[in-house]
Amino acid sequence: MAKEKKSVSMSVIKRLPRYYRFLGELKKNNITRISSKELSQRMGLTASQIRQDLNCFGGFGQQGYGYNVEQLQNEIGTILGVQNGFKTILFGCGNLGRAIASHMTFEDRGFELVGLFDSNADKMKDIRIKGLSVYPVEDLEVYCKEVEPKVAVLCVPTEAAPAIVERLVNLGITNFWNFSHYDIASNYPGVTVENVHLNDSLMTLSYQIMNREEQAD
Amino acid sequence: MAKEKKSVSMSVIKRLPRYYRFLGELKKNNITRISSKELSQRMGLTASQIRQDLNCFGGFGQQGYGYNVEQLQNEIGTILGVQNGFKTILFGCGNLGRAIASHMTFEDRGFELVGLFDSNADKMKDIRIKGLSVYPVEDLEVYCKEVEPKVAVLCVPTEAAPAIVERLVNLGITNFWNFSHYDIASNYPGVTVENVHLNDSLMTLSYQIMNREEQAD
Repeated sequence: MAKEKKSVSMSVIKRLPRYYRFLGELKKNNITRISSKELSQRMGLTASQIRQDLNCFGGFGQQGYGYNVEQLQNEIGTILGVQNGFKTILFGCGNLGRAIASHMTFEDRGFELVGLFDSNADKMKDIRIKGLSVYPVEDLEVYCKEVEPKVAVLCVPTEAAPAIVERLVNLGITNFWNFSHYDIASNYPGVTVENVHLNDSLMTLSYQIMNREEQAD
Repeated sequence: MAKEKKSVSMSVIKRLPRYYRFLGELKKNNITRISSKELSQRMGLTASQIRQDLNCFGGFGQQGYGYNVEQLQNEIGTILGVQNGFKTILFGCGNLGRAIASHMTFEDRGFELVGLFDSNADKMKDIRIKGLSVYPVEDLEVYCKEVEPKVAVLCVPTEAAPAIVERLVNLGITNFWNFSHYDIASNYPGVTVENVHLNDSLMTLSYQIMNREEQAD
């Protein structure tokens, strides 16, 4: 099956975690089987869209029989790599970094959070997040040689990001979950970046509120 | 100009905050004028895409003359409603809620954070975030009558979300910035919701890492 996913478009890939999440909720509610029609109604997609998406990976349902919820969730989990356990370090243990470190269940999503770093680590000696203490950025080179992390989560201010990213890329880390607004991908075309732009999301909401109100006037 | 935006597609709207952000960076670097070609190269879009996007709102550049950076940012800011100052309350002052409350500059994005709520407010008496204390959820009805907030940020666990959303909708709050995985939109079709699914973003990264590695094999 692995061979079939090369040509999958980014928009399909972005929908996979949503399928995974919906199927997880169905499982929690003890639903063991679902038709593509029912799944589509719950997800606000068309049934043919769902069939098309899943066909990108070989297809899983049987005509007229629907999907086995647990099996389909497992298959999608495998495609998404939830079992990978990529060693991950997090930079910037301010409010946002601490929230991300403590709030996210990395281990259920294909990652293992192994190290926390902050430029003010000396002021964070008492902090433990999921049993991890905060290392000073100076320790990065030694740490990476020993632990060989694969992924970095960036929760530093945008101004601090370029220097840290350069250092990380030089140490062979080429995968980033980026909460800063530094544009990593255009500066390092070879790396893999997933950006989270919370400000963009908030502004999109502002636009939607404003325009719904105008229409209601 | 307001009349021209009715038919604007969601994908264009989602790009507007990115334009706003890029133009802000240009301004910070004292760049006062930019061609659509240059802007497109920096943003990884085509020049015609940018022209098309901006034409949805009447168009701002002059042929062969480019865009005035500050003016274009201001215009896009107006379209996005950065001056709205929508009164906003936040629910759930755990790690994530506190990070969102303290990390985001709501006032630059069209919102004014006016109240924090938590079901364990009695244990949070010493907490002040941006000068705000945490109210118990029991105070919600009285508070809303007095303050009339328009927007709610949901940082509560998914299980807690349905009851809170029902209460908020009954109090006339119909705009949500939703960090929980509760599907508000399909339960309340009339409301405006912007979802932030951090887990989905993390799993998308996992997929990309895995597939880049396979291609390199």
